[in-house]
Amino acid sequence: MLGLMRGAPALGRQHQRTWSTATTTATTAAAASKRVVRSTINDVRQLDDGARVAVGGWVKSVRKHKSVNFVNVNDGSCLAEMQITLPAADADEGASLDVNIADITVGSSLFVEGVLREVPGGKQKRMELHPDTLNILGKCDAQVYPLQKKYHSLEFLRENLHLRARTNTFGAVTRVRNALSQGLHSYFQDNDFLQLHSPILTSDDCEGAGEQFRIAKPDGKNEFFGTPTYLTVSGQLHAEMYACALSKVYTFGPTFRAENSNTTRHLAEFWMVEPEMAFAGLEECIESAQGAVQRSIKQALQACPDDIEFFNKNYDNAISERLQTLCDREFARITYTEAIEILKKCGASFEKNPEWGMDLQTEHERYLAEKYVGGPVFVTDYPSDIKAFYMRRNDRDAEGRETVAGMDLLVPKIGELVGGSVREERFELLEAKMRQLGLVPEELAEQAERSASGGSLDWYLDLRRFGTVPHAGWGLGFERLVLFATGMDNIRDVIPLPRFPGQCQH
Amino acid sequence: MLGLMRGAPALGRQHQRTWSTATTTATTAAAASKRVVRSTINDVRQLDDGARVAVGGWVKSVRKHKSVNFVNVNDGSCLAEMQITLPAADADEGASLDVNIADITVGSSLFVEGVLREVPGGKQKRMELHPDTLNILGKCDAQVYPLQKKYHSLEFLRENLHLRARTNTFGAVTRVRNALSQGLHSYFQDNDFLQLHSPILTSDDCEGAGEQFRIAKPDGKNEFFGTPTYLTVSGQLHAEMYACALSKVYTFGPTFRAENSNTTRHLAEFWMVEPEMAFAGLEECIESAQGAVQRSIKQALQACPDDIEFFNKNYDNAISERLQTLCDREFARITYTEAIEILKKCGASFEKNPEWGMDLQTEHERYLAEKYVGGPVFVTDYPSDIKAFYMRRNDRDAEGRETVAGMDLLVPKIGELVGGSVREERFELLEAKMRQLGLVPEELAEQAERSASGGSLDWYLDLRRFGTVPHAGWGLGFERLVLFATGMDNIRDVIPLPRFPGQCQH
Repeated sequence: MLGLMRGAPALGRQHQRTWSTATTTATTAAAASKRVVRSTINDVRQLDDGARVAVGGWVKSVRKHKSVNFVNVNDGSCLAEMQITLPAADADEGASLDVNIADITVGSSLFVEGVLREVPGGKQKRMELHPDTLNILGKCDAQVYPLQKKYHSLEFLRENLHLRARTNTFGAVTRVRNALSQGLHSYFQDNDFLQLHSPILTSDDCEGAGEQFRIAKPDGKNEFFGTPTYLTVSGQLHAEMYACALSKVYTFGPTFRAENSNTTRHLAEFWMVEPEMAFAGLEECIESAQGAVQRSIKQALQACPDDIEFFNKNYDNAISERLQTLCDREFARITYTEAIEILKKCGASFEKNPEWGMDLQTEHERYLAEKYVGGPVFVTDYPSDIKAFYMRRNDRDAEGRETVAGMDLLVPKIGELVGGSVREERFELLEAKMRQLGLVPEELAEQAERSASGGSLDWYLDLRRFGTVPHAGWGLGFERLVLFATGMDNIRDVIPLPRFPGQCQH
Repeated sequence: MLGLMRGAPALGRQHQRTWSTATTTATTAAAASKRVVRSTINDVRQLDDGARVAVGGWVKSVRKHKSVNFVNVNDGSCLAEMQITLPAADADEGASLDVNIADITVGSSLFVEGVLREVPGGKQKRMELHPDTLNILGKCDAQVYPLQKKYHSLEFLRENLHLRARTNTFGAVTRVRNALSQGLHSYFQDNDFLQLHSPILTSDDCEGAGEQFRIAKPDGKNEFFGTPTYLTVSGQLHAEMYACALSKVYTFGPTFRAENSNTTRHLAEFWMVEPEMAFAGLEECIESAQGAVQRSIKQALQACPDDIEFFNKNYDNAISERLQTLCDREFARITYTEAIEILKKCGASFEKNPEWGMDLQTEHERYLAEKYVGGPVFVTDYPSDIKAFYMRRNDRDAEGRETVAGMDLLVPKIGELVGGSVREERFELLEAKMRQLGLVPEELAEQAERSASGGSLDWYLDLRRFGTVPHAGWGLGFERLVLFATGMDNIRDVIPLPRFPGQCQH
């Protein structure tokens, strides 16, 4: 087999993949010398006629003809399949391959070496692989393989979570998800943010963000950690801890809600991105949210054009245009007070009538983004009564109403994608609010006791006690961004293994 | 204040930071126009004499002299501090600043605008800032601020977790941690791996990896998910699910152990990196582990040279050389059988005598890495009896002993940094092993029932039932890499908020 690869094209080192054919004792240089270079289909399809390659993958379709068989293979590196052209058994040429075409079924796995040939005709350049060697690595019994058929409903695939990554849709979701994630990292790393690995387990009972899962007592008596312990609902407070020391940080990790929400927008476990910036106000909050979302979408458009086109064709035919437009322009901005006026005057009928002081419903959010703006819009300065305790209070307006320096980013189809605010950095104002909510003990304990007390958020006040700074941050529900970028409708279809009430399979 | 910034140097757009001085209603263009560009100290220190800048930060030290005061400020963007040179109150020049120097104490926060001046003399170029405007954003009462003193023990700082990021050590740890993390992402992204956000919550009771935390029943009766639910101990099986569809994936997320380990090497919550590759054997496993670790360390050396030097000076004076050496050469490789022979013959006295069939202890691992190799070493082909069920069985050796195609990467000071293996892809062998361990039901249920059953690992067998492929992967305990790269001794000091038995503060 080695000889076959002598003429292998010089792919860049980072594109060379190897697969050991002798995995039994592959620890020595001898084993290494037996290896055959595997290339991804994504790399191979960009090579020219005559190139010698080896690819591995899973069979997507088999078309049998009189003198030739076409086997399409996918390896997950891209949406595109590589067509393997096999002479039929009765043709002389194919005898040397020594494979039974009946064993090549949908879902079986192959390792193939051979020569690339350009398929004549057609508008776009298309390559097929003429094999010298073809190994069937793993058969797949068509009688029992759940994904044997060509089309499967998303519902059916949700019941076969462990296999759904083998479909075009979930391969595309995984690639776009990866690109969106890397786009976010790139934005933050290029803008001086440090990634903060904030904890999942917490003894803070964080007010307002949602119901928390609790860790069971292992022996029914003792707490493992000595205090009641929960799964985090947000890394924000911990991000503030670090921003108030290192200026700019971001978290990117799983968060949890123990809420009985059976909707297409909610999960019990989902990933959040939460940047936090010191020496920053609402302007920085808005600019960084726009910058990060745009960078993330650009990365998906750039790295996964075929996947985006696939979603556009199969799931939402406005998605390509929507994503492109989003990258090209500034997001609109209106205040909450303006938003309520717009909603009151717009003439649309809502289930809940817009009134100053109410929280915006998804119907309102979508109207503003889809109908009024026709794109993403920041809504700022919400009434303080409907927002969390840590948001910075604005001066009262002319009518005596109190708002906070917060913002939500609303986008078409989704509604709220990002929520953020300036944080209340003024010790007296924050302390009064937190006492009112019972988040810190009524009597200020001594320093030593304060440090040791679990559960209390007094440590959060220390960030204002000692060298407080104006700071701001926001949170983005990552799965909502994946929904937005793919045009998929159900949040359970944009995370590898969805967790929601009644469902925690695998 | 605006006028001051007219001559501001043209930093690249990605280096411009702004800080709104009016955060109350910062939603309009009017507010934007009032903003002053903040630069990070890391950017500012590379500018030239005469540049106009604005920086924000926390005071690290104040030195008062007769006619001048020196205030050192850090903003977390680098280890270096910016020296602010303030005329003393009785000097004419300083009167316009209108600050009381007594309010500038260690831990207080400042926002300063002015002109950079090169400090004359000294070997290295050093800049100081002559301010036109200085705002004390937050005072810090020296009487109660826990970090008032210059030196604090690591133990003391562990009791002040919410403030320790303000010290040089924990700033440096956070920056190096960020660089190591980005280095790993870069390696995987450049080598066609897709990041897989594998779940924290799982109904799989994963054999062998360690004790699991369980989620409490919310109302004491019903399980939220309908099945007993645990915190994951490893994303490997889920990574295999996706590698057996998309070829190359990696997880990077928190994992958990409910073990009563009170050591300097163990945490109850820690971050793991787990790549998984289809069409791969032990050779790819070893190559990718070396590549990823080297890339990660290189990133830290490149992005954080001052921090690495700080650790070298203050914590482990061999760290710079150790990291540099690691990047420059291939890691050594020996088999487990060779390792046992080496340990038997070496003449060193161990607490536990080396014998074929035993698991290597940390004392053995460190001997091999530190004394025998003097650097990182892969040990391969361990006895199958001491390794997990999913590792691929090798052929028996000449003496009839059975090993698996697994590897551990051992490094000086730490011992095991990476553990990986080829996975058993042969259905019959894996099924027999799993039945023996009770991981799948004795009787094979019907397809429909199999899919719906929670808790059983039968889905894992499906990956071999349908188009199985040779595949391999490894796991790296991220905090151990941070320990290795910083020379710190206690794992509790290299994660923002450590969780271990009896401790889950904040």
